[in-house]
Amino acid sequence: KYINIASIPGDGIGPEVMNEGYKVLKALEELHGGLSFERNEFDWNCKRYLEAGEMMPEDGLEILKDYDAILFGAVGAPEVPDHISVWELILPIRRAFQQYVNLRPIKLLKGIESPLRYKSVEDIDFTVIRENTEGEYSNSGGKLHENTPHETVIQNSVFTRYGTERIVKYAFEYAKQKGKNKLSVATKSNAMNYSMPFWDDIVREISKDYPSIPFHLYHIDALAAFFVLKPEEFEVVVASNLFGDILTDLGAAVAGGIGIAPSGNINPEGTYPSMFEPIHGSAPDIAGKGIANPVAQIWSISLMLDHFGYFELAEVVLNAIESVLMKGDNLTPDLGGNASTTELADQIVNKILEG
Amino acid sequence: KYINIASIPGDGIGPEVMNEGYKVLKALEELHGGLSFERNEFDWNCKRYLEAGEMMPEDGLEILKDYDAILFGAVGAPEVPDHISVWELILPIRRAFQQYVNLRPIKLLKGIESPLRYKSVEDIDFTVIRENTEGEYSNSGGKLHENTPHETVIQNSVFTRYGTERIVKYAFEYAKQKGKNKLSVATKSNAMNYSMPFWDDIVREISKDYPSIPFHLYHIDALAAFFVLKPEEFEVVVASNLFGDILTDLGAAVAGGIGIAPSGNINPEGTYPSMFEPIHGSAPDIAGKGIANPVAQIWSISLMLDHFGYFELAEVVLNAIESVLMKGDNLTPDLGGNASTTELADQIVNKILEG
Ligand SMILES: CC(C)[C@H](C(=O)O)[C@@H](O)C(=O)O
Ligand SMILES: CC(C)[C@H](C(=O)O)[C@@H](O)C(=O)O
Repeated sequence: KYINIASIPGDGIGPEVMNEGYKVLKALEELHGGLSFERNEFDWNCKRYLEAGEMMPEDGLEILKDYDAILFGAVGAPEVPDHISVWELILPIRRAFQQYVNLRPIKLLKGIESPLRYKSVEDIDFTVIRENTEGEYSNSGGKLHENTPHETVIQNSVFTRYGTERIVKYAFEYAKQKGKNKLSVATKSNAMNYSMPFWDDIVREISKDYPSIPFHLYHIDALAAFFVLKPEEFEVVVASNLFGDILTDLGAAVAGGIGIAPSGNINPEGTYPSMFEPIHGSAPDIAGKGIANPVAQIWSISLMLDHFGYFELAEVVLNAIESVLMKGDNLTPDLGGNASTTELADQIVNKILEG
Repeated sequence: KYINIASIPGDGIGPEVMNEGYKVLKALEELHGGLSFERNEFDWNCKRYLEAGEMMPEDGLEILKDYDAILFGAVGAPEVPDHISVWELILPIRRAFQQYVNLRPIKLLKGIESPLRYKSVEDIDFTVIRENTEGEYSNSGGKLHENTPHETVIQNSVFTRYGTERIVKYAFEYAKQKGKNKLSVATKSNAMNYSMPFWDDIVREISKDYPSIPFHLYHIDALAAFFVLKPEEFEVVVASNLFGDILTDLGAAVAGGIGIAPSGNINPEGTYPSMFEPIHGSAPDIAGKGIANPVAQIWSISLMLDHFGYFELAEVVLNAIESVLMKGDNLTPDLGGNASTTELADQIVNKILEG
């Protein structure tokens, strides 16, 4: 089976960790005779923007459309405003390809110490399902009385029944498929008095089809506190676009670091390619030094394997990561060691080859 | 000097912790001959709502207006939807009285263990300045195509130049007055593309008047992670209404618990009364058992003393809390002990009387 991958390494440490990802793909091919990854690399990044005035070509989405999956590194550079690098590349891909599920495991890997005093690998192991196409990221709003003392800016959060139902259904279905016992729901219906009561109502409606999965609503402020105080309470968490964004960076911190956490931007119907990316950014401060942590990129490949139904291979990759972390003697600086990106990745690749 | 206090104990554990607050007020009078607190208690709570159909009387705000300060317990009951208990009592007070600063210390007290493995009292000691009257809590929005598959709900975040300038100015001024070296600013201008770039611009403008206070913008997702990973980086943090809400519950967790954290809803001009309240809720699950932690309520009184310029007395109260926590043998269950609310508070009161 051929899997056709569009690779977008991006900026900063993006290309550095992506290169290690390629080695993993190659190792997987060696391990599993029937599998082969075709890949095409695209230089869609801030450098391109500074030269050509655009993050991706006009027909960029058209080009990506026919791939089986997109592997993403990280995008962003100090010279390019975020709203360009983000709104002209990553967000259009998420939306155009109806990648309405942003799936983010919050899992403390063996070998990693949580910053939380009393928590171990058994306590931190859940998944956040983040809405990925609408809500607070709706690109809708405006400004009036500009440049006067009465200047007023409005940012609209737009929640549709369509968009909300599909993410909530996905979350219940995911919990059911994975044999989980409950669904935790982020809300803020005590303050966001239009959007969040609507969100809650849809959760209640959909829950009727999943009587075996009790759900629990948490206000986002309390939920953030609980990620620190009792992460062991969570199995699957569903959240709106913004709340999911905040919770997953927080969750990554709790699970031992931003350099590790992966994500899948999933189009569940398979109508369009899904996209897999580290949740970390391009980290200009350490770019070029060869010391970026490649784990998030490699774990993202494991999520991609999961997505295509190669559950065992996905496990092989995750186990390889964990066994190298547990050995613990050649880690990157963010994990307290002084190995290079390549040194850490090579160990993982070797483990994968062992199967 | 007479300080005229309107007390709103509220529901659940609210009245339980408020009673201990009263003892503290009395102790302060004994300690400081010239100071006396007049107080009037108002039964504005969910019980009243269930009986009379309203959280407060129609002229409630009119009544409160002439007090020097409001002391608030906690409001909320399972039988009353949040949007009633919140939008018909606490939020109208914050807005009508232009309490545009929600001041929330995030401080690990001596005697309290942080859930963060490597962090001690030196590492967790900063203040969040939260905008408290507009932004994401603007009560503005609507719904269309109701009860059809095309149902769409819009929630507007409204940021005015007026509202944004005054909170940002307050934050810079606060940092300067307190001799702090920098201001950290919560943003999300890479995704909330109307409101947050505007917020950032105003920060940049106002910063010109404070050349000695460098500021640093953090996206809210990264900021939440940093609260866990490097709280020692922060001195003063300014945030919008929603971001401040999330950050302060998270901060309270990091600083050892929701039962401890206080807040001041401040009207800096003194045109209207300011309001002091624990950040915890009414906690119906433990209400009536006499085991609620009274520290947040008592610390809120310390913030009130600060507000009226009684800096030394404010210190006395905070020191009393810390010395009892450090002794550590009669704590409430949330702090690992089995003392009652009163037993913990009485020790603090005794310490205060020692001066
Ligand atoms: C009750 C709720 C609306 C409130 C808020 O979000 O402001 C509370 O969480 C707080 O922080 O005071
Ligand atoms: C870059 C930014 C817009 C993005 C987001 O907020 O979605 C990032 O933080 C993420 O989580 O993928």
